[in-house]
Amino acid sequence: MGKSLLHTPEGVRDIYGEEYARKLLIEQKLHETIRLYGYQDIQTPTFEFFDVYSKEIGTTPSSQLYKFFDKEGNTLSLRPDFTPSCARCAAKYFMDETGPIRLTYSGNTFLNTSSLQGKRGEVTQMGAELMMEPSVQADAEMICLVIDALKNCGLTDFQITVGEVEYFKGLCAQAGLSGEVELRLRDFISAKNYFGAQELLEQQRVRKDYAKVFLRLSDMVLGASDLSEAARLVQNDRSLRAVERLEQLYQVLRQYGTEKYIFFDLGLLSKYNYYTGVIFKGYTYGVGDAVVTGGRYDSLLSYFGKKGPAIGFMVVVDDLLEALKRQNIAPKPASDGVLALYERDAFAGALRYTKEQRGQGVCAELTPVNDRAEAERYALGHPGKQALFFSADGGRIRLCQ
Amino acid sequence: MGKSLLHTPEGVRDIYGEEYARKLLIEQKLHETIRLYGYQDIQTPTFEFFDVYSKEIGTTPSSQLYKFFDKEGNTLSLRPDFTPSCARCAAKYFMDETGPIRLTYSGNTFLNTSSLQGKRGEVTQMGAELMMEPSVQADAEMICLVIDALKNCGLTDFQITVGEVEYFKGLCAQAGLSGEVELRLRDFISAKNYFGAQELLEQQRVRKDYAKVFLRLSDMVLGASDLSEAARLVQNDRSLRAVERLEQLYQVLRQYGTEKYIFFDLGLLSKYNYYTGVIFKGYTYGVGDAVVTGGRYDSLLSYFGKKGPAIGFMVVVDDLLEALKRQNIAPKPASDGVLALYERDAFAGALRYTKEQRGQGVCAELTPVNDRAEAERYALGHPGKQALFFSADGGRIRLCQ
Repeated sequence: MGKSLLHTPEGVRDIYGEEYARKLLIEQKLHETIRLYGYQDIQTPTFEFFDVYSKEIGTTPSSQLYKFFDKEGNTLSLRPDFTPSCARCAAKYFMDETGPIRLTYSGNTFLNTSSLQGKRGEVTQMGAELMMEPSVQADAEMICLVIDALKNCGLTDFQITVGEVEYFKGLCAQAGLSGEVELRLRDFISAKNYFGAQELLEQQRVRKDYAKVFLRLSDMVLGASDLSEAARLVQNDRSLRAVERLEQLYQVLRQYGTEKYIFFDLGLLSKYNYYTGVIFKGYTYGVGDAVVTGGRYDSLLSYFGKKGPAIGFMVVVDDLLEALKRQNIAPKPASDGVLALYERDAFAGALRYTKEQRGQGVCAELTPVNDRAEAERYALGHPGKQALFFSADGGRIRLCQ
Repeated sequence: MGKSLLHTPEGVRDIYGEEYARKLLIEQKLHETIRLYGYQDIQTPTFEFFDVYSKEIGTTPSSQLYKFFDKEGNTLSLRPDFTPSCARCAAKYFMDETGPIRLTYSGNTFLNTSSLQGKRGEVTQMGAELMMEPSVQADAEMICLVIDALKNCGLTDFQITVGEVEYFKGLCAQAGLSGEVELRLRDFISAKNYFGAQELLEQQRVRKDYAKVFLRLSDMVLGASDLSEAARLVQNDRSLRAVERLEQLYQVLRQYGTEKYIFFDLGLLSKYNYYTGVIFKGYTYGVGDAVVTGGRYDSLLSYFGKKGPAIGFMVVVDDLLEALKRQNIAPKPASDGVLALYERDAFAGALRYTKEQRGQGVCAELTPVNDRAEAERYALGHPGKQALFFSADGGRIRLCQ
C-alpha cells in the first residue's frame, strides 16, 4: 500500500497552495468580465450520452473520449469541451427564443490520449456562447470579450489570430477535393506543414494555381491591410465572402478600439468540424498552444433540433495560468490573516480573539501548541500571517516572523 | 436526430438561469466562511485510480462507482466523495507536516446507481478537512464551521446531530459480533429500522441486555443532559470513552456559543467505513436527507502512508439549495444591468454606452433589433434590466418595462 496509492492517473493532477489560489483568482477575473458582457451562467453535466459527441457533430474524435456505461448499458462520455452541451441546452431550454442567448460556463474537460504531448487530460475551461446572433457585431463581441478578459487577468502581451474557415472550404470546393482529402489538407495547413500539404496536393493532381494558394495558407499571417491580397488570390464566392466578412469584422473591432491585438490568418483552421465561419485563437508567451480558441458554429444547434447561428470561445484556464506564471505576472492571492496559537488552557481566550477577527472578515486559524517554542516554529512556517501566542497563564504575545 | 439528443443521462441534469445563479451564490457564501477559518483551497482530479476507493478504504461500494479505463488499461473511477483524495494529497504533499493541515475543496461527485431514490448521480460538494489535529477542539471547529457556513447561506432552522461511532463499535466488540454482522446491524440502526435490528440480534443470539442497548440506539436522540444516561447503559471502555468525548465536545461547543444547534444520537452511523470517532450530520426542512455530513477518520491517512488523525465535513450544495428554496429563503442573485438595443446604424452609439457601463462595473448587453417594437418586446422578456433603445436616427430612448 502507501506509495503506489499516491499517484494520480496519467494526465491529471492535484493543484493546491498558492498555485491553486492563483487559478481561482484568474477564474474569478475571467468570470467577472464575461458577466459584465451580460452572459448567464450555466452548468451542464460532467458527462453526456456519447451521441452528443458523435462524429457528425464534429467535436473530439471518439478515440480520445473517456467512455463508460450507466447501469442501463448506455454509453456515456466525459465532456471534451462544453460547446455541444451548450448547443443541446439552447435547443432544450430556449427552443422558441429568437433573440440572442448568452451563456457562460466553467468546468473541467477531459481528453483520453496516451500521447498528451505535455497537454493535460483534465483542464479547466471557461467560456461563453452567443447564440441566435449572426451579425459581424456578434463576432466582434466575442473577440473583444476575450481581449477584455485576458487584460483583466493581467495579460498585456498577447494576440488574437482570426481566420474564416469558409475561405479554405471555398478553395477546396473549387479544387474539387473530396471530404477526406479536405480533412487531411486541413491538418497539414493547421500544422503549418508546407511539405506535407505540397505532397498531398501533387498526389491529388490539384491545379497548379489552386495548389499555390493552398500552400500560401500555411504561412499567411496578415495584417488587416493584407486582406485585399487574400481576396485577389481567389475567384470563388465562398472564399471572397469570407474575406469580406473579415474586412467588416476589422471595422467593428476598430470601433471597439481593439485592433492592435488582431492578426488575420486564413490558414487558421480547427480540429473541431463544427466551426463554420470566423474562427480565432489567442496566443501569448510561455505556452506553446493557444490559450483561447473560438469561432462561429452556425450548423451545430440544428443537430439538436434548433435552427440558428452561434459563436463562442473558451479559455483553457490552466494554460493561461501557466503563461502568466512564466511571464511573472500571475495575480498574487491575498495570504493575509491571523494565527491564534494557544496552549491548551488558553483556548477560551484564543477562541474569543479568532471569533472577533472572523467577524471582521479576517481569516483566522486556531491551532493548539505545546509551548511558545512550538508556536514560533509554526508561525515561521506561515509567513504573511500575523501570529499571536496565547499562553496558559493568560498572556497574549505577538510573535516575530 | 434532434429530440433524443436533448436528454441528459439518468441522474444528472443542467442547471441554468436564476437557479444556477443562486447555486453559485451559495457556493460563494460557503467558501467565504470556510476561508475565514483559515482553510486552503485544493483541487483534485475528477477521477482517481480505482484503488483510491477500494473496499479497505471504506468509501462508496464499488458497484456504485462509475468505472472506466485509461489507454494503459488502468481502472479509473469518478470520485464519489473528496475525502480519500484529500487524504492522498495530505500524504503526498504534506508527508512531513506534523502541525494541522486545513484543506477545502469544491467540485462534483458521482454515484452510479439505477435506484437513485430521488438522489442525483452528480452533485456539487463543498467541504473541509482538518488533518493532524486529534483534539476535541478540532471536532468543535468543524461543527461550528458548518454552523457558521449554513447561517451565512441564510439558513436559520437547522440542527446538527452528533454521534460517536466508537460507542456502537464498543458494543459490537463486547457482544462479540462478527464484522459482517456489525455492518448489517449498522445499516438497520442507521435506517432506524428497529424490527430489522431486533430480528438480526435474535438470530445472532446476542445477550438480551446488550440487544436492548442496540435497540435503544435506533431511537435514541439525546440532549446533552442525556449523555450520562448513554454512559450508564454500557460497561465497555470504548463506548464509555465515546460518551466522554461527546461530553467534552459539548463543553467546547458551549464556548463557541453554538450548543443550541446540537443534538446527540449514538445511533448515528455512516455508510463510510472510514469514520472512526465523532461523526455528525446537519438536517433542515425541505430535504429528506442530511445536507451536511462529517466526521473523524483517524485511520484513513495511514492507507496513503501518512500517520495522523483527521476530521472533515462536506455540504451537498444542491441539497442545501433545495432546502433554502423550499423554505423560501434562497439568496436572491442580483439581476440588474442594462440592455442596449440598437438599430443597425446606431451600433457606434450603443457600443459607446455599453463600454461606459461595463467600465463602471455594470453588466451591459449589446443587442441588435430591427425596430423599436422589437426592442420593446425584448425588454419585456428581460425584467429587472434597464433597457435603452438606440435608433438609427441617433435617438436614445429609455424603454418602459
